[in-house]
Amino acid sequence: MNPKKLIPLALLPFTGLSAQNEVNIITRPNIILFMVDDMGWQDTSLPFTGTKTQLNERYHTPNMEKLATEGKMFTQAYASAVSSPTRVSLMTGMNAARHRVTNWTLQKNSSTDSKSDVLQFPEWNVNGICQVPDVPFTYEVTSLTQLLKNSGYHTIHCGKAHWGAIDTPGENPHHFGFEVNIAGHAGGGLSSYLGEQNFGNRTDGKPSPLQAIPGLEDYWGEDIFATEALTQEAIKALDKAKKLGQPFYLYMSHYAIHIPVDRDMRFYQKYIDAGLSEKEAGYASLIEGMDKSLGDLMNWLHENEMANNTAIIFMSDNGGLSSESGWRDLPLHTHNAPLNSGKGSAYEGGVRVPMIVKWPGRVKPDTKTDNYLIIEDFFPTILDIAQVKDRATKQLVDGVSFMPMLENDSTEPTNRNLYWNFPNLWGNQGPGIGPTCSVRSGNWKLIYYYETQKKELFNIAHDIGEEKDLSHQNPDIVQKLSQDLGKFLRQADALRPTFKATGKLCPWPDETSF
Amino acid sequence: MNPKKLIPLALLPFTGLSAQNEVNIITRPNIILFMVDDMGWQDTSLPFTGTKTQLNERYHTPNMEKLATEGKMFTQAYASAVSSPTRVSLMTGMNAARHRVTNWTLQKNSSTDSKSDVLQFPEWNVNGICQVPDVPFTYEVTSLTQLLKNSGYHTIHCGKAHWGAIDTPGENPHHFGFEVNIAGHAGGGLSSYLGEQNFGNRTDGKPSPLQAIPGLEDYWGEDIFATEALTQEAIKALDKAKKLGQPFYLYMSHYAIHIPVDRDMRFYQKYIDAGLSEKEAGYASLIEGMDKSLGDLMNWLHENEMANNTAIIFMSDNGGLSSESGWRDLPLHTHNAPLNSGKGSAYEGGVRVPMIVKWPGRVKPDTKTDNYLIIEDFFPTILDIAQVKDRATKQLVDGVSFMPMLENDSTEPTNRNLYWNFPNLWGNQGPGIGPTCSVRSGNWKLIYYYETQKKELFNIAHDIGEEKDLSHQNPDIVQKLSQDLGKFLRQADALRPTFKATGKLCPWPDETSF
Repeated sequence: MNPKKLIPLALLPFTGLSAQNEVNIITRPNIILFMVDDMGWQDTSLPFTGTKTQLNERYHTPNMEKLATEGKMFTQAYASAVSSPTRVSLMTGMNAARHRVTNWTLQKNSSTDSKSDVLQFPEWNVNGICQVPDVPFTYEVTSLTQLLKNSGYHTIHCGKAHWGAIDTPGENPHHFGFEVNIAGHAGGGLSSYLGEQNFGNRTDGKPSPLQAIPGLEDYWGEDIFATEALTQEAIKALDKAKKLGQPFYLYMSHYAIHIPVDRDMRFYQKYIDAGLSEKEAGYASLIEGMDKSLGDLMNWLHENEMANNTAIIFMSDNGGLSSESGWRDLPLHTHNAPLNSGKGSAYEGGVRVPMIVKWPGRVKPDTKTDNYLIIEDFFPTILDIAQVKDRATKQLVDGVSFMPMLENDSTEPTNRNLYWNFPNLWGNQGPGIGPTCSVRSGNWKLIYYYETQKKELFNIAHDIGEEKDLSHQNPDIVQKLSQDLGKFLRQADALRPTFKATGKLCPWPDETSF
Repeated sequence: MNPKKLIPLALLPFTGLSAQNEVNIITRPNIILFMVDDMGWQDTSLPFTGTKTQLNERYHTPNMEKLATEGKMFTQAYASAVSSPTRVSLMTGMNAARHRVTNWTLQKNSSTDSKSDVLQFPEWNVNGICQVPDVPFTYEVTSLTQLLKNSGYHTIHCGKAHWGAIDTPGENPHHFGFEVNIAGHAGGGLSSYLGEQNFGNRTDGKPSPLQAIPGLEDYWGEDIFATEALTQEAIKALDKAKKLGQPFYLYMSHYAIHIPVDRDMRFYQKYIDAGLSEKEAGYASLIEGMDKSLGDLMNWLHENEMANNTAIIFMSDNGGLSSESGWRDLPLHTHNAPLNSGKGSAYEGGVRVPMIVKWPGRVKPDTKTDNYLIIEDFFPTILDIAQVKDRATKQLVDGVSFMPMLENDSTEPTNRNLYWNFPNLWGNQGPGIGPTCSVRSGNWKLIYYYETQKKELFNIAHDIGEEKDLSHQNPDIVQKLSQDLGKFLRQADALRPTFKATGKLCPWPDETSF
């Protein structure tokens, strides 16, 4: 790789400009982080299990398939089980146990935790993160985008932000160093995908829903899906970025495929024709609309001769929603099969997500790795890709760069532990959903339930569906992982619930046997 | 002054929040920099000469009068003679000789200099400033707003930006650390003030003029003047800022009172009734509309109980336009009387501008200073007001804080020299307009004309109209100031024109006797 090249400034209209003028341009790669919302590991035609599942047969994502052919699939990429913790970990490099934005955020000073008769939930950072001091219930950080911007990247936000509550500094992507903000705000969901419905915004003078998508006024009243409108706006921003002479970072953060399951009519009928129910055809259309957006961006890079100097990272923020029958016709908790459960769960269905990276010249095409990684690892990795030298941050970074996994073919497994902490009550019911903490260590995964002190141990390599709890057969492993987990949570100053009856904190996993 | 106070977080809806929670808030002042475009020293009813002139009688600016009663008037505040150099000096603390954005910017890699048969103009920074490396014909800087933002200020841009050419990073206020941008872009003028004309934007699919105001789409087709629309948007941004719990910096940068002299019909008729011509009544209405905006912001501060913790700085970016008969009925070059000439001129009419500062508790009300200062001094002063500690910048700062002038009653004159360098040809004709450099030192001012090597020396205290050239009576002073000026320009690595006939650079002022 030649990091520098000399570009002559030819044919300038500037009177008197000498022809010898040259500008030294560092060719750092452009970066597109294509983040999908609530997309499950199986919500694609790309087989992350190795062979096509029934769900892979159901969905059509040709552009994800193309991306995988040109890059590397990550079959064991992890996020948090809900949105805000994942997105905060991405922006800060911190594990959720440390940043304490452990549940989803929306309104200022207000927790989204459901109520429990048994547990009192801790005072987590309900206002999210921000870059300034003295904001209550936030963690003050230096964000990924601020570092990218400081280092010379042109930074573009498009779509869902969800880093801070309404009326706090963190609600606005511009406060984190994004130079362009398309449609990002405090909301983590959306009222409507439909241009005909002004994306949920009211026009009668009454307040719009808190989650109505802002900033797409140009498309109000039109027959256009939010996914398409966002893509068109992103491409306008890329057309501008191309002129600025800087590398760009595009955070293409779709509201799709979050509920409501509106129908993307460009794709809906073919799923009906294939025999899916109306709800399921709608969901499949949401996915294919998202996939088209990926293709449109790839086409733009190709047409603008930037494909070879752009890294594309595809990711989802948590597992697919599987605990609400109102939006889907599949049996509850089967939407991410063979993974168990879905969004909100400590099981693989909640935290394992589809991930692909294309980076020409650095990542070998049509490859795959089964090594695991977690969302906070994106922070140091993206800074590595961008060659950012000044990485001084206010926060302690937990993430570890996965650059070796990008560049090496080795399938040597990583031995580090991954941790999750969710001392909250999300609300929906389902397997593995509730206040838990957990650790992945090699093939083992230990889940600890704060309320009951129950522990479960799974061998993920042999039991991807987490059906066989092996804790009683392996007390030594349970003890070792309980100690690892307890030690990590304490050093991260993690939160945990309190028993209402006694006023005592729930024990750490290493303070109780089973 | 007590810089800190404890604010209890009472009555939070957060379940389980302990009542003892308190947040330590640093009460740094809010700052409003109210910058008017092309406003002459006499374009107000406020008498900067000490007694009301004819022009002061003609115009009505009651809110400027109120601001002066509550603050301090600066009778000798200087800017550059055209817009971009002033605005770049404000954002960087650099003298224009050093930042080399010496004329106004608009199109990429393209100089706005007029042509001359005699002189070749130098390769100045036609693309303005930016915060990233490797952008041709720019100066890479750390901006005032970036430092304010980094220190915790919520930063709002409203109105004219004019820091960088189209399709360069500097065109966008977000690239300089502004978190909100209302209507700022590369343009330094405007196509139309009228909402009925969509502020100059075309809707027929053809390209809009380069200087059509962006970002005010909500007001298109309405009977509203741009000055009012910007003010309403600024107040919306302040309503939001109030909720964020940060001090704010509002750069209220009006496109007014730049040409075109559209009529602000809220005020127009009364000037017709007073006997002014249509053009002159239009101009007076532009001024009063701007003054109403100032009043609206002051009212907002009062209603929101922020008036006592907000510093307001009123400033203009250069002298009033006096060299175009198409827009005005006053005799050419008299529009800033008793000052000579106007915008674009090295004379006082081009560079001396109205300035007022209100800062309750720090600046004594109803006061005035005749000490001089120059636009680059705003940079360190605003950082002083904001108590910004981290001031590491990429550029060398020429400006000197005028905090002592704010806080002290002393009329002890400053003895430092002020410098200007304009190695360009603006285009319009008039007294003092052309490629010049100049120095103010005590009561003396020396102007040097690059093309002819002519030098003029004025005693500003006795001859504010710069009518009596005293250079031949005071050769020692001419020599001393020529040396000071030449020395400063060389150390600043300033630009100068070249003679086309010989290919030789014009001499510095200390390289020629007269």
